[in-house]
Amino acid sequence: MDYPSKVLSKAIEEIAGLPGIGRRSALRLALHLLRQPSSQGISLGAAIQGLVTDIKYCKECHNFSDQEICDICNDDKRNAELLCVVEDVRDVMAIENTGKYKGRYLVLGGKISPMEGIGPNQLRIDSLERKIKSHTIKEVIFALSSTMEGETTAYYIYKKFKDQDVMFSNIARGIAVGDELEYADEISLGRSIINRTSYNEAGL
Amino acid sequence: MDYPSKVLSKAIEEIAGLPGIGRRSALRLALHLLRQPSSQGISLGAAIQGLVTDIKYCKECHNFSDQEICDICNDDKRNAELLCVVEDVRDVMAIENTGKYKGRYLVLGGKISPMEGIGPNQLRIDSLERKIKSHTIKEVIFALSSTMEGETTAYYIYKKFKDQDVMFSNIARGIAVGDELEYADEISLGRSIINRTSYNEAGL
Ligand SMILES: [Zn+2]
Ligand SMILES: [Zn+2]
Repeated sequence: MDYPSKVLSKAIEEIAGLPGIGRRSALRLALHLLRQPSSQGISLGAAIQGLVTDIKYCKECHNFSDQEICDICNDDKRNAELLCVVEDVRDVMAIENTGKYKGRYLVLGGKISPMEGIGPNQLRIDSLERKIKSHTIKEVIFALSSTMEGETTAYYIYKKFKDQDVMFSNIARGIAVGDELEYADEISLGRSIINRTSYNEAGL
Repeated sequence: MDYPSKVLSKAIEEIAGLPGIGRRSALRLALHLLRQPSSQGISLGAAIQGLVTDIKYCKECHNFSDQEICDICNDDKRNAELLCVVEDVRDVMAIENTGKYKGRYLVLGGKISPMEGIGPNQLRIDSLERKIKSHTIKEVIFALSSTMEGETTAYYIYKKFKDQDVMFSNIARGIAVGDELEYADEISLGRSIINRTSYNEAGL
């Protein structure tokens, strides 16, 4: 379709570049913005630009942060002996949302997936190694998706560090096998963390 | 939910302010943007800001335009004797997309709707009056939604200007009664324009 204005056409093209938004929805969103005071579009545009230019990642845990070290890693009231290993920043948000966990995190940045060509080298195993070898951590809690890739990732980490002076545990499988962690409701997820079980060779 | 970063939180809040996008989708879109090169978010933000600050409306027809007068009103090859009256800029795009109409437009900016408190004064009836009284227009074509509000709007305009030296026609009802114009497929819509019928007191 031809659009009557280049600024409209450019906006539609950019908005339709987002996943799950087609050209028709993009047109609707653009027309919606044009019906609002222009301050709304200016503010939205600035927030998107601010997001991609100003976001920082915590040097300790790789979670999003506004400072070099995030509020969680900086919080002395949290238990520095517990390290919860998650795939993604969304998982940190989901677990924090339960209010049940008061340790720290390590965001791996994915899971081992030969199908998608993701091996251990693409994950922050080096950060995990540094943390484990600093000897402040007593327990590594796996909070990974209960999928093949999640299990493989936990097993890889367990094998690599099992001779270190650290315990391994798995969050309780309160969530259905095959489910992605981020879709779990917060009550099940909170219970899974409290009922975490010692991790063993069989991955069970 | 608490977000680990203010820039993330601000972006989610702004994106979730768009219609049909909840906080969960907004988070997904924000995380998607963070996985892309930052140039994509910068470009998207700039396009949204450009849309709301740089968009212009044609002084003749009230369609979107990059100049004072739009490409359609400026095009001497188009028939200046035909004026197609539509509710919305989307309807201009839909009709242009059929390739069947070579006259000009007038965008009313809505339809008479007592339920929504929209009367003739909220519409560009004054622009229409100026055009009709300039005596270049020979035919006013109603391309309004075939809903109660669309019919009321056509009837109001017809009554107001029926003594002027201009003909009135209605696009053929090739589209189902009760349908919004913008959802019509382009073949039906193109046919509706070609088979337009003379407009009379009964609105039929
Ligand atoms: Zn941190
Ligand atoms: Zn125009």
